[in-house]
This record gives sequence, C-alpha cells and structure tokens, in this order.
Amino acid sequence: MSAQPHGTAAPGTLFLAEIHEQPAALARLLEHEDAFEAAGRLIAGRRPGVIRLVGHGSSDAAASYGVYAFGLLASRTALRDSISLSVYYDAHLDLADSVVIALSQSGMTPDVVEYARRARADGALTLAVTNAPASDLAAAADVVLPLSAGVERAVAASKTYLNQVAALALLAACTDGRGSELADGLRQLVPLLDGAIGTLEHQTGRLATAFAHVGRMFVIGRGVEFATAREIALKLTETCRVAAEPLTATDLVHGPIAAVDPLFPVWTIATHDECLPAVQEASARATNAGAVLVASGSAADEIAGAEYRLPVPLAPQPLLSPLLSVVTGQLFAAALARAKGLDADRPEQLSKVTLAR
Amino acid sequence: MSAQPHGTAAPGTLFLAEIHEQPAALARLLEHEDAFEAAGRLIAGRRPGVIRLVGHGSSDAAASYGVYAFGLLASRTALRDSISLSVYYDAHLDLADSVVIALSQSGMTPDVVEYARRARADGALTLAVTNAPASDLAAAADVVLPLSAGVERAVAASKTYLNQVAALALLAACTDGRGSELADGLRQLVPLLDGAIGTLEHQTGRLATAFAHVGRMFVIGRGVEFATAREIALKLTETCRVAAEPLTATDLVHGPIAAVDPLFPVWTIATHDECLPAVQEASARATNAGAVLVASGSAADEIAGAEYRLPVPLAPQPLLSPLLSVVTGQLFAAALARAKGLDADRPEQLSKVTLAR
Repeated sequence: MSAQPHGTAAPGTLFLAEIHEQPAALARLLEHEDAFEAAGRLIAGRRPGVIRLVGHGSSDAAASYGVYAFGLLASRTALRDSISLSVYYDAHLDLADSVVIALSQSGMTPDVVEYARRARADGALTLAVTNAPASDLAAAADVVLPLSAGVERAVAASKTYLNQVAALALLAACTDGRGSELADGLRQLVPLLDGAIGTLEHQTGRLATAFAHVGRMFVIGRGVEFATAREIALKLTETCRVAAEPLTATDLVHGPIAAVDPLFPVWTIATHDECLPAVQEASARATNAGAVLVASGSAADEIAGAEYRLPVPLAPQPLLSPLLSVVTGQLFAAALARAKGLDADRPEQLSKVTLAR
Repeated sequence: MSAQPHGTAAPGTLFLAEIHEQPAALARLLEHEDAFEAAGRLIAGRRPGVIRLVGHGSSDAAASYGVYAFGLLASRTALRDSISLSVYYDAHLDLADSVVIALSQSGMTPDVVEYARRARADGALTLAVTNAPASDLAAAADVVLPLSAGVERAVAASKTYLNQVAALALLAACTDGRGSELADGLRQLVPLLDGAIGTLEHQTGRLATAFAHVGRMFVIGRGVEFATAREIALKLTETCRVAAEPLTATDLVHGPIAAVDPLFPVWTIATHDECLPAVQEASARATNAGAVLVASGSAADEIAGAEYRLPVPLAPQPLLSPLLSVVTGQLFAAALARAKGLDADRPEQLSKVTLAR
C-alpha cells in the first residue's frame, strides 16, 4: 500500500494499483481458509433449502457468480434475493431453512445491513462477507468472513470484487467438503493472475485508444461468466461513462441485438465451458448485425469474427475462470478512463461508501 | 384483429394496435379465472419450498414481477432461476419441493422448453404460461395456463407482457386462496387501462420529438416496478435502438450515476408504494448529476425536478400498478421509433420467435 495520502494520487493510479494488487489480495484471503471451512460446515449442518445472496453494485455482480458456485460445487439453490421485498415491503417469508450471505465491501450499505438484521431475527443463518469485520453488517450477522482485500481507496471496486468471487467459490466448496481442492485451485491462480496482468495491460491500452469515442456497449457472458459481464459493464459505466449493459448471450438475441451497429460494440466473455456454444452463437449474431466484437476470456480465440481478441490463460478449474476474465475488463476500464481524460479513482457523483437507499 | 396480412402494415402500426388491444387482452385472460384457481390450489398443495420462474426477454421481465407477486400475495419465495445451470451445466439440484413457472409467448424458446422438461423429470410441478397451448413448452409441462393475449404480430411484445404480469399476479393470489379479490382488481383495471391509453399516447408523442436524438438512457424502478423498468428498457432498445439499461433505483447510485449527463436521460417509474422514498432519492441524485428526468407511474408528480411527467391513474390494488406503468413506456417506444424512422413492428435482426440459444 502506497503511503501517499488519499486525494493526491494522479488520476486512475489508485484503481490501477489495486488491480495489480489482486494476486496479493487473493493470497491474503487464502490465509483464512480455516474460517471458510468452519462456515461451510455450519451451512451444511443447516441443510438449507435455499441460500440467499444480497448486495449492491459489484457485490451484486459477485452474487451472480455465487448462484453458480453453490449450484455447481454444492448442488444447492442460491438466489440473488430481493432486498426491497424484505426491507421495504416487509414481506413475511419463512426463512427458517435459509442461509443468507450478505456482501458489502464497507459493511455499511444500509439496506443490506437491514436485510441481514431481519433475516437473522427470522431464523436464517446469516453470514457477512466484508472487508470491514467491525462494521454494522458484521455486527448484524451470525458469522463474519473476512474478505481481506485490504483497504480499497479507488471508488470503483477491483480487488474487493475478485476476493468476493473467490470467497463465494471457497465457501460453496467448503459446504460440500471440497474446500481444500478449491483452495488449491485458487493458490495456483495467484501466479497465473500475476503473470497475465502485464500482458493484458499492454493489450487493453491499445484497445482503449480505438474505443475512446465509444458511448454504448453490450457486455455478454453466460453461466459463470454472466457475473463477469455485469462487473465489467459496471466498471465501464462508472469509470468511463460508457452506457455498457450486461446481458446474457441469450438475452442479447432476444431483443437488444436490434440496437447494435458499428459504433455500438459488443464485448464477449468466452470461456472453455458448457456455455461456449451459446456464446459463440450470440457473438456470430452480433457480427452479422455489424457490431465490432471484442472477444475476451480463455476461449477468446474461439470467437469467429472478433475484431479484437484479449485471451486469458486457462484457469486451474473451470469454475475459477471468472477470476481471470474480469481482470481484462478492469484493465480496459482503467485504460479507457485515461484515454477519455477521466479519473477512474474518483468518478463524478460517487463516493467509496454508498449510503443511499 | 385486422385482416391485413403480415408484412404489409405501415411501420409501427401492428405494435401500436397491440398496445391499444391490451384492455381486451386482459379481459380475455380473466375468462380463464377457473384455470388459475385450479392451478393455485395445485401449487398450494405442493407446499413448495421455492417457485422457479424462467423465461427470456419480456418473459424474464415478467418473471421479475413474479418474485414480488408470490412474495407479497402468497408469502412464498420465487426466483428467476438460472436456465444455464440446469440446461448447459447439468447441475443436480433437488427440485422435489419446487414449482416451476415457465414463461414463453410462443412456447418454443428452446432452452426454456428444455429447462421445463428437465425440471418435470426431476419431480418439480411444472406450469407453462404461454400464448400457444399446443406448443412444445405446453407439452413439456404438467399444467398449461393460457395467456390468451391473442395472436401477437409485432416482434416487440406488448399485450403478451401485460397478460404475463396479470397471470402471475392472479396465480400468486390463487395460491393463497385470494384469487377472486385479485381478479376483481384486474377487472377494475380494464377500463382504467382503456381510459389511460389515449392521454398517454398524446403525451408520449410530444416527448418522443424531444428525445429523437437520445442514444442512451437509464430506466429506474424499485420493487414491483423493477419489472416495468426492465420491460420499458427492452422496448426502447429493440424498437428504438436506444442503449436503455434498466436499474433498480438503488443500483443507479451504486455506480451508473457517474455516467449520466444532459444527453443521458433517466426515466423513473414512481408508484405510490413502500419503495417511493428510495425512488425519490435516486431521482434527486440523477437531477443533481445533470440528467434530464422523465417521471412516469402513478406517483410521477411526487418526483421533484422531473422535466417531463407522465402520470398514470392509481391502480385498484398497489401490486397492480405495473400493468398501468408499463403502457407509458410501450407508447413512448412506439412514438420514438416513429420519430426516428424505425419500424417498431419488425426491428432489424429480430424475428417473432427466437430459436437461438
């Protein structure tokens, strides 16, 4: 961590430094493997009917990943729960066999804290995954899992998101007694991430110059990479002022495809897994419609017609691909903000901790 | 229904005619109240742990409404389930105490059909809500509920969406033995809808002229109106080639607010319910950020700083507000497409039945 006080760094340097810090942040998370093992046993002991994930912004993008982590690693139904149903409408749902995982970097997001309080009072086993173990959210939960991303100074999250995704994978695996295998995969990922960042930084810098005048994009992924699409689109929207909408590959062709044109590019996240054929099909539709296509992910080279390709290495386990895929988008956002003269560290209208409803 | 063969109507006339036909379509749905009552009893008899909603495009927007309908009318947890988790990843989840509601206008959406087949084989009670009672989806389900929207000829859905929302409200109420009360509310809504369409058509026509050069928008809602935000954004994207992204009011301020400016308007759906304060807060943030604000919904007049206001009448029951709110967006999309010289009936790259994965 630099000793430079907040507010004096050159535009975008905090965000970029934190993107680079991600392998170290991931390694820090793995020091808490025992805490995840214990939490996983607690969840398994509850035999939950459903696992409810809540969060806003990047935390909600990570929750999209959690649906697949729990579905594939633990054969459990997880859902991104409606916060308003509980907190605003005061709906009375039976939560006795529910597990709640509340995600918040700061641990201060008001309606996430309130959701967790209510869920715990209604009998749900409530876990807080946060960078702030002394926060309101931590106090509201039965169990606190430290995110250990370290202080995040850029307003736009990077290492927090990466560690949230890793934490959800690890927790899901621990719920099924497969924590050590998953942790091994994450350990192998640390040097892979570290090695990829330099190459990707160079490639995304060149792409940013070409995209400096782009105002609209679709970011598509499917399955485990839909979370990545959501997170990359959010980075582009908040740091680069691009109207970047995340879509599943399938939803692109159910309507939005009609809007693309040569100035409305499509960013595809293609990974070597069971969803690749659907992503390839949607990508072909996008190029047919005249869109400039950027292909990222481990299977970027399998996307025909892509004008730009930014592949990442194969992850040690397929489910861990999103931890690599997202970095391409983070680095592109950092480079595009710079190309547009924007400060990715301090986007207008935003503060690090969002206290709004 | 006009006798004019498909393909010869003037641009946008089918879409507009079907928007106008919605009160009649809703009345047709209500002729099947008995079928909904029977299905509701069947669902209640299963005492489901969770209700899984699946669909793409407009059907998925309607599913967002279903989460609130089942939560508020039947105190049941409903979720928009991941189709890829089942169909592509072949995840093995226990569906024995699940109810599945599959939504598809055509009944032909391939991965929705496949999802329903697998869920039924795994023991879920499976319902198809479709305009095509002789479709593949209907054949795959235990129970078929007719949408009765009538033949929809415009590619962009309107009356199908409206009837899907009404069907989900009615089904949820029937699950809790409150079907007739809800059906009464829907019956009262028919003339309200009919009366509102003319005024809204006039108002949205004027707004469309002012918005002819807008390329990017956010559409925000919260709670029951998030479905409306999703559906309006989809209409604008597919028929008007606007990059319109739906966001919850809260998610707007968790990042995307940084992108707005005077040429990046925000459309707010404000309804008199428990979420109104959150919507007002987000709307104030949007105007502070310099966005042009369009306020729609029954509480449009409660949104300070809105440059345009398009109120709709109060719904007979608060949960039925989305049936009125969506019409404003449909009519605006029809008018904006016309102002931009686009054919809302046949957007480029789209066909009525999407067979892509």
